[in-house]
Amino acid sequence: MSFSKISSMVAVVATLGFGTAALAQDFSSAVDARQGGMNIMALNIGVLGGMARGNADYDAEAAQAAADNIAAVSMLDQRFYWPEGSDSAAFEGSRALPAIWEDFAGVSEKGQAFGAAAAGLQAAAGNGLEAMQAALGPVGAACGACHDDYRQPR
Amino acid sequence: MSFSKISSMVAVVATLGFGTAALAQDFSSAVDARQGGMNIMALNIGVLGGMARGNADYDAEAAQAAADNIAAVSMLDQRFYWPEGSDSAAFEGSRALPAIWEDFAGVSEKGQAFGAAAAGLQAAAGNGLEAMQAALGPVGAACGACHDDYRQPR
Repeated sequence: MSFSKISSMVAVVATLGFGTAALAQDFSSAVDARQGGMNIMALNIGVLGGMARGNADYDAEAAQAAADNIAAVSMLDQRFYWPEGSDSAAFEGSRALPAIWEDFAGVSEKGQAFGAAAAGLQAAAGNGLEAMQAALGPVGAACGACHDDYRQPR
Repeated sequence: MSFSKISSMVAVVATLGFGTAALAQDFSSAVDARQGGMNIMALNIGVLGGMARGNADYDAEAAQAAADNIAAVSMLDQRFYWPEGSDSAAFEGSRALPAIWEDFAGVSEKGQAFGAAAAGLQAAAGNGLEAMQAALGPVGAACGACHDDYRQPR
């Protein structure tokens, strides 16, 4: 291993090396990560939405890749994403309503519904335009159902 | 399905419903998504870094969850992430050097090295502090090796 690689590694660990105790205070990393997951899903849903609306040709392989990405992000473990105090009322830059922390059961239920819709999309996306379209609607509905209750309007 | 859910679904699809042809112009979605992946990895590497440095107690289950997240993000299909013209010279807000588009083979090689390191971390993270520490170093090195060549310094 070259010196520059070791230096990089040390730099990375130094930059990112806060602990889980300290982590609860580092809201920007948590907010960036959870918004990052949303942004990955948005890009991939956009690809599928473009095909669904006829703005792009349906491509089974690309549709499957997009759906696989959405499903993979839906299955990430979010335990580090939601530290107390990182809500929209307390942390500038977050639209995550305080209701999330008051109703984890409700959030979890909506998260599970989203996961089920994402799994349905993953199963259907490569099976033709109509199958993909039919499976995309429930994903959008699941996104919206959670955003309606737990995301601050712009 | 309630009207509000249908409305939400329509809004989501309307907002995100650009096609793959149009997508090449929508650099902010692509940049947000690829930075989002980096941010998810950073949060999870930070959790492991905190344990590795003794700032947090080693927790096998949490360490495994973090490593699983990093490995999952390393395996996402990035085909929609890197449209031509979304480099640091052309797009404000990106630090992705133009060299990426001139040397996809080099980028791919470093990406594969990162994937291998992430898989190693996933295999080791739950097996005790020392095993996790030993597997975390190569992940940091792989991050740094790619950033050295392909990311604009701040």
